[in-house]
Amino acid sequence: MITEEKLQAYNDWLFRKSAYDMALSIIMTDKMTVAPSGGSAYRDARTAYLSGELFSIVTDPAIIELLKEMKDDPDLDGDTKRAAYLYYKDAMATMCIPKEEFIAAEELMNKSYDAWLEAKTKNDYSIFEPYLKKVIETKKKHYSYRNSDMDLYDQMLDDFEPGMNREKYDVFFNALKERLVPLIRRVEEAEQIDDSFLYQHYDIEGQKRYCADLLKYLHFDSDWGYQNETEHPFTNWVCENDCRTTTKYIENNVASAILSTVHEVGHATYEHDCDDKYDGMILSEGISSGMHESQSRLFENYLGRTVAFWEYNLPLLKKQFPEQLKDVTPEQFTAAVNVARCSLVRTEADELTYPLHILVRYEIEKGLFDGSISTEGLDQTWNEMYKKYLGVDVPSAREGILQDVHWSDGSFGYFPTYALGSAFSAQFTAKMREEIDVDEALRSGHFEICVDWLKEHIHKYGCRYDADEIMKIATGKAFDVNYYLDYLEEKYTKLYHLK
Amino acid sequence: MITEEKLQAYNDWLFRKSAYDMALSIIMTDKMTVAPSGGSAYRDARTAYLSGELFSIVTDPAIIELLKEMKDDPDLDGDTKRAAYLYYKDAMATMCIPKEEFIAAEELMNKSYDAWLEAKTKNDYSIFEPYLKKVIETKKKHYSYRNSDMDLYDQMLDDFEPGMNREKYDVFFNALKERLVPLIRRVEEAEQIDDSFLYQHYDIEGQKRYCADLLKYLHFDSDWGYQNETEHPFTNWVCENDCRTTTKYIENNVASAILSTVHEVGHATYEHDCDDKYDGMILSEGISSGMHESQSRLFENYLGRTVAFWEYNLPLLKKQFPEQLKDVTPEQFTAAVNVARCSLVRTEADELTYPLHILVRYEIEKGLFDGSISTEGLDQTWNEMYKKYLGVDVPSAREGILQDVHWSDGSFGYFPTYALGSAFSAQFTAKMREEIDVDEALRSGHFEICVDWLKEHIHKYGCRYDADEIMKIATGKAFDVNYYLDYLEEKYTKLYHLK
Repeated sequence: MITEEKLQAYNDWLFRKSAYDMALSIIMTDKMTVAPSGGSAYRDARTAYLSGELFSIVTDPAIIELLKEMKDDPDLDGDTKRAAYLYYKDAMATMCIPKEEFIAAEELMNKSYDAWLEAKTKNDYSIFEPYLKKVIETKKKHYSYRNSDMDLYDQMLDDFEPGMNREKYDVFFNALKERLVPLIRRVEEAEQIDDSFLYQHYDIEGQKRYCADLLKYLHFDSDWGYQNETEHPFTNWVCENDCRTTTKYIENNVASAILSTVHEVGHATYEHDCDDKYDGMILSEGISSGMHESQSRLFENYLGRTVAFWEYNLPLLKKQFPEQLKDVTPEQFTAAVNVARCSLVRTEADELTYPLHILVRYEIEKGLFDGSISTEGLDQTWNEMYKKYLGVDVPSAREGILQDVHWSDGSFGYFPTYALGSAFSAQFTAKMREEIDVDEALRSGHFEICVDWLKEHIHKYGCRYDADEIMKIATGKAFDVNYYLDYLEEKYTKLYHLK
Repeated sequence: MITEEKLQAYNDWLFRKSAYDMALSIIMTDKMTVAPSGGSAYRDARTAYLSGELFSIVTDPAIIELLKEMKDDPDLDGDTKRAAYLYYKDAMATMCIPKEEFIAAEELMNKSYDAWLEAKTKNDYSIFEPYLKKVIETKKKHYSYRNSDMDLYDQMLDDFEPGMNREKYDVFFNALKERLVPLIRRVEEAEQIDDSFLYQHYDIEGQKRYCADLLKYLHFDSDWGYQNETEHPFTNWVCENDCRTTTKYIENNVASAILSTVHEVGHATYEHDCDDKYDGMILSEGISSGMHESQSRLFENYLGRTVAFWEYNLPLLKKQFPEQLKDVTPEQFTAAVNVARCSLVRTEADELTYPLHILVRYEIEKGLFDGSISTEGLDQTWNEMYKKYLGVDVPSAREGILQDVHWSDGSFGYFPTYALGSAFSAQFTAKMREEIDVDEALRSGHFEICVDWLKEHIHKYGCRYDADEIMKIATGKAFDVNYYLDYLEEKYTKLYHLK
């Protein structure tokens, strides 16, 4: 039986854990935004030590015993049982790794990030390769401690998206390939849309001034959020009322920082809008990577790339760039940010070709873990795959293998959730559009109407339920990839006047 | 005898301690610059918990025993003995406080900061007063645990500037009053200098662009430093190669952010330029508040407010503000940033009247701790003192009692070191000017020549020696307040053409 005393021990443990989670989150955001490079080695060693302290808290045998008891205790409320179950699951995955190895891995990941950043800056994969190799070896070793019957890469996929594995992703990606590749071919043959005005000179100060307006429109304010700059945009959080997003400004590309801002605010809003009573505990977090990405991509693509969105926002953007955007209409601007074109950089890709970028990474990850692909020469492998799937020649490692941060910290199995999340978004948006007038909300500056719907049907649950359960709660149906494929087909058929 | 094993225990302890110091430093900087306000309560409670973890490390009885042994061990090298002595001294001051009270106080200080910020924003002292009262009570209680024979406020003064007390500060401030008050009167009666051009509209983006040039000139770069914005500028650091400064931009005052930038970079450079071998241990830190302030004020006043400095920098500033500064010469600009005028805000004060601002705070602090002054009505007391010492009417709490952050976290005894530091700077600068051509270095864009001198004679020692020893090492003489008074007299006699 869970006595008052035991519950107190659980709450004390939760608080201690959340203190280290907070510290590590702030240190990480700091590192990736403003921290001076010369202090990296000093900080990384100490950050790893603090991660080890957290490791000890998470894997405390007395607590694991307690969590095990709590998760199945019939007298406890559902929220507490669910939280205990999720903590227990995390602990099981962590406790099998020896603490010294865990700490060493944390330090390696931090150093690997620095190496990736240096390699990208210098456009030289050879700087990053030895770290990538070590990161993969470390991951393999850590997973081997679990003694699972599951295939190694399947375990990784499951960690980011519970229930998913190679078999299911293969089915998913095959469905995508089957309908999207022909569609892409048809778009390529259609009359092309002029988007050249997006790539004029847009001074960064002007972009920042507009982004301040944009953040207001999105209701991302200093009460609960802060946006900084970084090399590879991400979102991080301390608690519901402390979410940090990042963006990256590019002088000759006005849409990049804007859409990445909308994207990251989607992640932040998901964290912010969870039910208050879960704050500081695991239930307040997004349930899976795919669900998280479904919210960021819903913001970016299903709201941010619509005419209604730009009917409100284009005049604000024109205030900063009256010359560059003089004769551009919301329709033209929207068409331009939706141009489909096989390209080099995932984060800049349009919705239609985006899944192919993910497919490249998925295929490479499968190969890295079944031994058919090696880190040596991986830059060349990358280039060949881009040629094969996207038909483009990669001119540099910076725009190729080094473009993404994710492998530097060992996030293998994560990329596929990006495509899956996009597909989730389609189904959520279809339902939302049945229930509220999304375009009117966007057009009239009432973005909060959409946010409220998402909060009520998705965000408030945090990870109280699994992703498939939330899909059913929100849309009344199980996940169906056809929402996504129908959406893309309809959108691009119309945009390119396809027959 | 200090065995290898004991030394290892000491080094392990040092590392653990430095990990928490790092985390708390980053969390603090984050809080005071960008952290969303809504997350304050959540963060503050957890930050206090982590401070408690550090408390436990610092006051670990086994370590205190070891430090006690080490500080007097004849076989250890001087550096290690000195470090052990300083850690031991710190531990003695901390360990007498019960841990729960220590943690509660940390949380109180964080909340008190938020209350101060809110009070300042709303221009309402009553929001801050209850916190200030609690902070003072807490400080009194903590000091009472020491069971020292020394007077309470004397202990506080000694903590910030070892060896100082009310008696010595009274002598110091009397010497200042004696020579500076008549000088201020003479300046007031002289023909006034036009500084109105400093107070035109200077847009903040332009100020930021110039500050980027300025930071380059000062050799404050992203290898080892980062500058952010805050309400009340400060400097903080993680290690030698990770120093954070802050500034505050004011639209109708072009000199404010510039001089505060130069000031804070002085603090940062002192920390950065310590001997590498001390990094991560106590010896790497500045020896006292007065010494720290001597370096920031040396940068700000003795270098930053000179004609030579502006011969190089004014053209850079004019690039951003060609209209506002069209006909202004370096001599006129320098004269304007040196205008002496009894005013309201300490951080904006000129060198000559600055010590009077400190005197007000010193008198109030004495009164708060001998019981003759209360926090209730302290805004009125403040206003009366400003009338008495500076002859000005304080129109609002924001420009009065609420202008400084320092009392919100209980830094009583700190302000007097600001005046003392200014006086130290004079003596250091006199010596530096004997040995190198400071003006030529500033004029020609070789600020590093000054920095190198300071590093060689002051910075590299960290707190290897006491402040008075460093004064002798650097200048060959004991501290003499007349360097300061002579400097001010000569400077202002010339500037205002006094007879």
